[in-house]
Amino acid sequence: MNRPKIAITMGDPNGIGPELAIKSIERKAEELGFRPVLIGDEKVFADTIELLNSDLTLTKVKDLSASPPSGSTIELVVPEDLDVPEIEWGTIDPAMGEASFSCIRKAMDLAGRGEFDGVVNGPINKESYKLAGYDYLTELAYMGHLESEDVEPYIIGAMEPFFTVFVTGHIALREVPDALSTERVLLHIRRLNEVLKNLGLENPEIAVAGLNPHLGEGGQIGDEESKIIEPAVDLAEEEEINVAGLFPADSIFATALRRDFDGVVCMYHDQANIARKILAWKKGSSLYGGLSVPGGTTAHGTAFEIAGQGIADSDSMEDTLSYVTKLISD
Amino acid sequence: MNRPKIAITMGDPNGIGPELAIKSIERKAEELGFRPVLIGDEKVFADTIELLNSDLTLTKVKDLSASPPSGSTIELVVPEDLDVPEIEWGTIDPAMGEASFSCIRKAMDLAGRGEFDGVVNGPINKESYKLAGYDYLTELAYMGHLESEDVEPYIIGAMEPFFTVFVTGHIALREVPDALSTERVLLHIRRLNEVLKNLGLENPEIAVAGLNPHLGEGGQIGDEESKIIEPAVDLAEEEEINVAGLFPADSIFATALRRDFDGVVCMYHDQANIARKILAWKKGSSLYGGLSVPGGTTAHGTAFEIAGQGIADSDSMEDTLSYVTKLISD
Repeated sequence: MNRPKIAITMGDPNGIGPELAIKSIERKAEELGFRPVLIGDEKVFADTIELLNSDLTLTKVKDLSASPPSGSTIELVVPEDLDVPEIEWGTIDPAMGEASFSCIRKAMDLAGRGEFDGVVNGPINKESYKLAGYDYLTELAYMGHLESEDVEPYIIGAMEPFFTVFVTGHIALREVPDALSTERVLLHIRRLNEVLKNLGLENPEIAVAGLNPHLGEGGQIGDEESKIIEPAVDLAEEEEINVAGLFPADSIFATALRRDFDGVVCMYHDQANIARKILAWKKGSSLYGGLSVPGGTTAHGTAFEIAGQGIADSDSMEDTLSYVTKLISD
Repeated sequence: MNRPKIAITMGDPNGIGPELAIKSIERKAEELGFRPVLIGDEKVFADTIELLNSDLTLTKVKDLSASPPSGSTIELVVPEDLDVPEIEWGTIDPAMGEASFSCIRKAMDLAGRGEFDGVVNGPINKESYKLAGYDYLTELAYMGHLESEDVEPYIIGAMEPFFTVFVTGHIALREVPDALSTERVLLHIRRLNEVLKNLGLENPEIAVAGLNPHLGEGGQIGDEESKIIEPAVDLAEEEEINVAGLFPADSIFATALRRDFDGVVCMYHDQANIARKILAWKKGSSLYGGLSVPGGTTAHGTAFEIAGQGIADSDSMEDTLSYVTKLISD
């Protein structure tokens, strides 16, 4: 059986991305059974291998058609347009923003040609890539754009013991209520259900949050619960999704912990992420949904303050590779 | 020195309120140094004392002008209009809603006459009191109404290691952005600062959250941060309040844990309470602000499912009595 091929982009080279890539390949590639392919700069990865006293060696390749190298040799694809200046750890630099996006572009291009089964990104720096002229709120928005204008990618917040998805994402809080619809709530219940099934859960139990405090107190302080969200839960039940709720947003996570729910469908970004950052600080993973290949990135950023020291914790990168491998082998 | 007199209302008699009152008086009244006065039904409390094999005895009083009883005798004030039917543990009953509000009314009446230094409520049941005709979103709204139409009471979420306050409370999420103003954000920074100082912190450090995901991404997805919230933080700094922020709502609590902030000012109800219910499930306290006396109630409800068994955890009630005692002795 061929091992699934996962592209691992270096992320922003002034951050901890290259270090996470080398550490997590060394620790997890064999155990998880995937074929890792680095996308990035040769010197950056070579220096990182030296920094970490790693036994890995690199072999530059143009494509993945050949047999995989054996032992501790890792394939490296260098994008044609990649141009990485001297590393300055912890520094915002548009050239590094451009470099991190060049690697993502290359990974998506090869994935689109069927050369990759999954794409995992090292953490990128938003200020750096924005200064490089990429006007995207997230790298995932850029990845969606690379595939097609019609792609609507979304994030699954992956953590133990439950996963989250938000129905509305990177929009102003003011716009959240009107951006909700029964159709979109149902869509996200389905999405989370599908991802959890793809991760191996047979009949995942999914809790759905309300929008307003105390679920709107029976309409006294908001009626999106009865008008929009509950009908979506009813429709999900008709589709035999194992759905529970509605639950008030402020208690749904505490309840999910106690009732062993597998997933929580949230109405807006911070509803999900307040809980996630308390319960799984810099752990777990942000999985990409809606792309043509499975993928994801770390739950944390570039950690500029510790870049270049070899002390970065690669748990979240390893979690990401683990989840993406599971999603591929489904 | 006279011990501060704290009214402890029984809450909904079909719930765990009477049990929490007896347990916490037994465990904490002497240590904390307050004079507890029960407000409620004689039979309810006598039965509770028997259930718990408590050594406490009750003495019915009309007012608190006499010297306090000695030893294990606890004063009990029975409201003139109190009418408690047979207990049915765990049952919604408008008569019990009426009874719980009658006790609150009596406590506030006596507090208004200067007979109490603090008011602590046993948990009430919202369905029961609403069925009794009280159209209030919280018991605190009713207490404010009892004092004056102009009173605007607010909740301080009290927990270790940090306290919370929300600038907007029991309103629809849709109404939150327009309900924010620099004046109101500043008001709540001041309120939290004052409560923390009254609790004994010399120079409490207070973090302020934004409203939109990622603080609005520099105006791309919402501008309340720069237009409304940051100016309030600047004004608070000018008043020499030890204020930090803004922080994105999704990371402010994780940051508060790591940086030892004493308080977090939140923009809306669930922003505060998602964090609170994860970090302090059924612990800590809801303190009342804006009334003429300090007060508070438990962080949890009536716990109907375990009422009458003598197994309720009185931690949150004890915390509430501890905080209120500190606020009184300030």
